[in-house]
Amino acid sequence: MKKIGVLTSGGDAPGMNAAIRAVVRKAIYHNVEVYGIKYGYQGLIDGSIDKMELGSVGDIIQRGGTKLYSARCEEFKTEEGQLKGIEQMKKHGIEGLIAIGGDGTFMGAKKLTEKGYPCIGVPGTIDNDIPGTDFTIGFDTALNTIIDAIDKIRDTATSHERTYVIEVMGRNAGDLALWAGLADGAESVLIPEFEDEFSDVIDRLKRGHERGKRHSIIIVAEGVGSGVDFGRKIKEATDLETRVTVLGHTQRGGSPSASDRVLASRLGAHAVDLLLNGKSGRMVGIQQNKLVDHDIVEILNTKHQVDLDMYRLSKELSI
Amino acid sequence: MKKIGVLTSGGDAPGMNAAIRAVVRKAIYHNVEVYGIKYGYQGLIDGSIDKMELGSVGDIIQRGGTKLYSARCEEFKTEEGQLKGIEQMKKHGIEGLIAIGGDGTFMGAKKLTEKGYPCIGVPGTIDNDIPGTDFTIGFDTALNTIIDAIDKIRDTATSHERTYVIEVMGRNAGDLALWAGLADGAESVLIPEFEDEFSDVIDRLKRGHERGKRHSIIIVAEGVGSGVDFGRKIKEATDLETRVTVLGHTQRGGSPSASDRVLASRLGAHAVDLLLNGKSGRMVGIQQNKLVDHDIVEILNTKHQVDLDMYRLSKELSI
Amino acid sequence: MKKIGVLTSGGDAPGMNAAIRAVVRKAIYHNVEVYGIKYGYQGLIDGSIDKMELGSVGDIIQRGGTKLYSARCEEFKTEEGQLKGIEQMKKHGIEGLIAIGGDGTFMGAKKLTEKGYPCIGVPGTIDNDIPGTDFTIGFDTALNTIIDAIDKIRDTATSHERTYVIEVMGRNAGDLALWAGLADGAESVLIPEFEDEFSDVIDRLKRGHERGKRHSIIIVAEGVGSGVDFGRKIKEATDLETRVTVLGHTQRGGSPSASDRVLASRLGAHAVDLLLNGKSGRMVGIQQNKLVDHDIVEILNTKHQVDLDMYRLSKELSI
Amino acid sequence: MKKIGVLTSGGDAPGMNAAIRAVVRKAIYHNVEVYGIKYGYQGLIDGSIDKMELGSVGDIIQRGGTKLYSARCEEFKTEEGQLKGIEQMKKHGIEGLIAIGGDGTFMGAKKLTEKGYPCIGVPGTIDNDIPGTDFTIGFDTALNTIIDAIDKIRDTATSHERTYVIEVMGRNAGDLALWAGLADGAESVLIPEFEDEFSDVIDRLKRGHERGKRHSIIIVAEGVGSGVDFGRKIKEATDLETRVTVLGHTQRGGSPSASDRVLASRLGAHAVDLLLNGKSGRMVGIQQNKLVDHDIVEILNTKHQVDLDMYRLSKELSI
Repeated sequence: MKKIGVLTSGGDAPGMNAAIRAVVRKAIYHNVEVYGIKYGYQGLIDGSIDKMELGSVGDIIQRGGTKLYSARCEEFKTEEGQLKGIEQMKKHGIEGLIAIGGDGTFMGAKKLTEKGYPCIGVPGTIDNDIPGTDFTIGFDTALNTIIDAIDKIRDTATSHERTYVIEVMGRNAGDLALWAGLADGAESVLIPEFEDEFSDVIDRLKRGHERGKRHSIIIVAEGVGSGVDFGRKIKEATDLETRVTVLGHTQRGGSPSASDRVLASRLGAHAVDLLLNGKSGRMVGIQQNKLVDHDIVEILNTKHQVDLDMYRLSKELSI
Repeated sequence: MKKIGVLTSGGDAPGMNAAIRAVVRKAIYHNVEVYGIKYGYQGLIDGSIDKMELGSVGDIIQRGGTKLYSARCEEFKTEEGQLKGIEQMKKHGIEGLIAIGGDGTFMGAKKLTEKGYPCIGVPGTIDNDIPGTDFTIGFDTALNTIIDAIDKIRDTATSHERTYVIEVMGRNAGDLALWAGLADGAESVLIPEFEDEFSDVIDRLKRGHERGKRHSIIIVAEGVGSGVDFGRKIKEATDLETRVTVLGHTQRGGSPSASDRVLASRLGAHAVDLLLNGKSGRMVGIQQNKLVDHDIVEILNTKHQVDLDMYRLSKELSI
Repeated sequence: MKKIGVLTSGGDAPGMNAAIRAVVRKAIYHNVEVYGIKYGYQGLIDGSIDKMELGSVGDIIQRGGTKLYSARCEEFKTEEGQLKGIEQMKKHGIEGLIAIGGDGTFMGAKKLTEKGYPCIGVPGTIDNDIPGTDFTIGFDTALNTIIDAIDKIRDTATSHERTYVIEVMGRNAGDLALWAGLADGAESVLIPEFEDEFSDVIDRLKRGHERGKRHSIIIVAEGVGSGVDFGRKIKEATDLETRVTVLGHTQRGGSPSASDRVLASRLGAHAVDLLLNGKSGRMVGIQQNKLVDHDIVEILNTKHQVDLDMYRLSKELSI
Repeated sequence: MKKIGVLTSGGDAPGMNAAIRAVVRKAIYHNVEVYGIKYGYQGLIDGSIDKMELGSVGDIIQRGGTKLYSARCEEFKTEEGQLKGIEQMKKHGIEGLIAIGGDGTFMGAKKLTEKGYPCIGVPGTIDNDIPGTDFTIGFDTALNTIIDAIDKIRDTATSHERTYVIEVMGRNAGDLALWAGLADGAESVLIPEFEDEFSDVIDRLKRGHERGKRHSIIIVAEGVGSGVDFGRKIKEATDLETRVTVLGHTQRGGSPSASDRVLASRLGAHAVDLLLNGKSGRMVGIQQNKLVDHDIVEILNTKHQVDLDMYRLSKELSI
């Protein structure tokens, strides 16, 4: 294999740039040419493809976002779109592709692989909702952004008798909310995996209030519902003054944490190794602190699980 | 004067601890005893009063929030409440008081002064809405918190064609929104001082969109309305995809910035100097980079003005 | 077991407070009393021992340093010192001890265990030099502090043709330097595990210079020698202008990262579980992302290994 | 005036990018063309000159360093070098120049002005050592970087009986050291403006030690001498264990603070206004919170003064 491509697709995540950098440098180290495809699969269809050099990835390891931009692409879900993409790969002589992103990204990679164009998926999403890897690129950074925000809220919380509701990202996975709850000693955490916990939240608030607790922090994953709505419901159920913060897209940005940069560098380089070793249709990951790879179809058919022991621990420590 | 008191009241602001520290250390430097009053005027009424030593203010200069806690106090707005407070001052031998906070705080200080108990006000509020001082304690920190959040949003903004609405604090004053807009190159800023600008926001969005601009950032001060509502209205008027972030109470917390710590130290020490020099019913401030003091009644009767030149500049630079 | 003690000893590390908090809350959750011992083993000898409640660990999860203070204690290395410590444990009815720290801390725990007082060690040190755990409490935070500093240096580095030498901590272990090098794309990393690499550093600098590279970053672990000396030697060997930064004790402080807080919470709680289950002379750790425990004697007799694959990767990516 | 140039020169400072952005956008707002000159006066001589558009300054307001790069240039100190620069200006039709930097930068601007090419200087340096402006671009950011580092050192300082020496930048001016000392409650501050204070430092250390103070922080401006040397001398004079941190070039980098971005935006825009109004040989500044401008020759002949009241205050508060 003498020419490979790399793209980022779906929601962006901090560390994607570090992964791109690792792909480019590892490939060049092995005398392989690398082509950067902009705007994900849309750019593959449109031919937004440029050769990358060492200098193309200078000064990006510490940047949030993705230098190759990202997009969601409806057209690539169709056979026609996929064939257009393959046309472009042929035109540029690209023999294999590294696709950085989440579920949707891997679906595209699977299609290309099936059509004879070997792809390797790299898990990049702040939600940590990809099976086959203990951590996804961006999760650690998003988590630090969240706890930084909650720390600030705690500073001011002691002054007033109030309940603070913080809505964090996580449409299907509670990892961000759960880890943030543990890391910040939140009183309660509401995650999509456990839906019927609202009465428990209210019980804890009331018990805490009776014990003289002046303030409480409740973290709500967006998948459970809107923080603003929960704030209203808590106010109604407890009559406690309630304030809501919706962290929103701040969670997607920021300079990647050290862990995310190292993880991205290792996964990106590992993806190049796999491609050069003739592998195809795999997703790289880190499990039990070791580099691994899995069949991408299997990954797409598996559901990510939240850590039950950590969920239990978060309840025990927030008595 | 041999014994003075210090309290923080109203919404807390980063840097209040640095101000308390300066009051305590400056007083002890002049061999004056200092008493810390907890929970603002409520604590004055209740007698939550403790003598402070050098050690009481160790390791707090860098902390957000206020070590003396804060509260709003309805009772102190009544003559009866004020007399209870004076009773406590007599009991502890406190001859003068330094009150750190905003408008409401100064109203209490005015009442005590009128009743023969000299008070000095120190402007501490993130809103920067106090006349007689160019900057209030906490404004600079809150501003840095806001731009840090917007920087993160910018990282991710480039990926998608979207409008980002960010709601920041500022019920009556647009300073936080305006400065944040300048510091982050926001496309539009909506502040309470200029109410009829919504159509201008829409015009700018449409023009930008036509020029090929992929994303825009709109900052809304809470005094103008809810960010969530503005997001909806923008979506309706432009059909652009819109995302809303409500920074909420993150803006009140965090370790104070260097400028806020220095400002708080200077204002706190200056307040002690005034009290020891027999001054009464004054508010300290910084104007034209020099320590000043004003009649607290005059401050209460004046309205803070937003800087018009800066508002104009923010429009010129966001063409 | 109805009463347990907890102490921190040796060099402090961010996250120790989160570990203390988890120990206290987990114990109280199981209706076990907890005693905090100040200043490590010195405080055990001196009887600086206080009962801890839920409130004792409020608002500390996010603080650097250790609320129980730390110290090194020569006296506890002697039989006599150990017996004094046991005397105090008897006096307070403390039946088991959780000791948070590094090698020296575990040596003390081993001695107490041998004398019939069950101890559990929790690995807390920024150096990550403890075998039996993939990560120690504090490592992730220190790493983020280092890359934050190097990011700032990179900002300014592009302006001038210069070599920047950054000395980081790590007397015996190169983990901090190696991970920081990967996370920041450093040109070279000098670690105690590989001593004869100085000529390689010079070769890389010269090659880079010839290719037109304007600036380079070299990370030196303190165990290899002084950054200032290396700066001088590099200047002599290459005639390139060289600037040295010694990060020093900034690396020990700071609010713990999300990962460190979660790790500390899990390890602290796990240590309580082991003690209550009758375990003794164990060190808790995290391996392959799972909670584990090892014989503390075995840990003391094993040498931590740096990750060779990561060292190789750091060279491949910095071509 | 229809075409202007902009360059950054000398040591870079955070906020320079925000100033460049303001120059470009303000000029375009007035329908004036802007040319960016890379590598300061060296690039002017070499003709590294490119036309800038709105898009040239996108996404840079939050970046440290300078997009136009910086350099010191010996050749431009000669008549010959200056004439070469003027040749390039003529060639590109550049009628006026905005030069962002410090003393050396303004000397170049003065020379061009004298030769009939109107220049406006914008003060950009972290040292705050320029007369005619209360603050220079970059000072506030560097200050926040310093206190962030000292905060971390404080976290760990409480554990051990030690003296921490921190060397900060400031070859001729003590502003960074003095403000950092006030903002962090340092025990002593050594600045170039007051040379004979070493015995006072020792006296304070000894007195503190006798009072039971466990740790002290001493800030040394590099203009006074090397932090490493001071550490040694303090150890010799007091026998206290001493640790040294040399913050080095971390102080030059980092994303500019909100204040620096706003200041840079205002000064950059003001410089354009002056140039378009036919002014020449001026330096813009902010004094008493208002935009001002001064004769650049006068600025070059004046010496910056450190604030004596603040120096006194720092001593009073660190009793």
